[in-house]
Amino acid sequence: MHIALIGATGTIGTAVNRQLKDRGHTVSALSRSTNPALSIEDHASIVNALESLEQIDAVAVASGSTPFKPLPELSRTDFAAALGNKALGQIDIAQTAVSILPEGGSITLISGILANVPVTQGTTASVANAAIEAYVRSAAGLLPRGIRINAISPSVLTESLDGYAPFFPGISPVDADDVAAAYVRSIEGAETGQVITVL
Amino acid sequence: MHIALIGATGTIGTAVNRQLKDRGHTVSALSRSTNPALSIEDHASIVNALESLEQIDAVAVASGSTPFKPLPELSRTDFAAALGNKALGQIDIAQTAVSILPEGGSITLISGILANVPVTQGTTASVANAAIEAYVRSAAGLLPRGIRINAISPSVLTESLDGYAPFFPGISPVDADDVAAAYVRSIEGAETGQVITVL
Repeated sequence: MHIALIGATGTIGTAVNRQLKDRGHTVSALSRSTNPALSIEDHASIVNALESLEQIDAVAVASGSTPFKPLPELSRTDFAAALGNKALGQIDIAQTAVSILPEGGSITLISGILANVPVTQGTTASVANAAIEAYVRSAAGLLPRGIRINAISPSVLTESLDGYAPFFPGISPVDADDVAAAYVRSIEGAETGQVITVL
Repeated sequence: MHIALIGATGTIGTAVNRQLKDRGHTVSALSRSTNPALSIEDHASIVNALESLEQIDAVAVASGSTPFKPLPELSRTDFAAALGNKALGQIDIAQTAVSILPEGGSITLISGILANVPVTQGTTASVANAAIEAYVRSAAGLLPRGIRINAISPSVLTESLDGYAPFFPGISPVDADDVAAAYVRSIEGAETGQVITVL
């Protein structure tokens, strides 16, 4: 398969990129630093970058950021930033991908354990992740040409514990390779409308 | 109790207003047409309107709109409108209320059945409702002074079937009075962090 991977240089994206290539797929990485560039916050760049590729069979996203702050410090702007980047950005990529993907194509987005687990400083991530999961549940039955869509919801990464451990007390981390395997499951499997948790 | 009610003139808000007054509470209605005005999309108006009230014990919202359109017609702007109004607007009201409410105060927001149930043309509502519910789950354990927060999640209203029945096939409607009872339960009860479904 030919897979467009947005966020291929992050911790998860690097593992996804490697596993997909190991399994014989062709991966086209897209980010703000590729040519053409894809910024998750810029609709025109999403359309331009995805339409620049030769026929793709799947789109996968491993990108999206949300501000971590104590609840009393969170402004409307912080919530708008989280939703505008991780949620609206991925929804925009999915909506754009639908018109490009062939029969049986697939879309794989990323949410995260905080959709359901409240942690100190994690409220904007909870909101953005839940929005993504709701989009996936709602869109799955409405997509044309048998296109499938799933969200990968990982726990905190083992590789990110240096920075994020204080935000995830008592929550077991997972390796980026296990998260990447969930992307393979979404892309090569038959699931749709699912939140594939990696805990 | 003295309760600030945002959206007091809508179908749900009217029923909430009546039930709260019947139970001996004082209700201050706030909307774009009150003085001071409160627009759910305007942070400054939210702060100004809430701070204009005498000491309030609870804030309840029965307001928020999302565009209904077939999935292929939904643009990034449509999702941003749904999130900016129903989700960010209510989150902003809640975040503002926290600094105003006394010990034991409460916040009641509104989501809706589409958070979990996909229907044709309902994807932006699904996304916004899920975002609100995630905020409530995340914020509940982080609020100061014993302040509680819940979301009311109703099915389609009996009173709104004329316009909305086609979007809710096979989904039993509920009366606005039953939804209003859930607001009473949230305001007078002891629950926090809950999505109170009215199905």
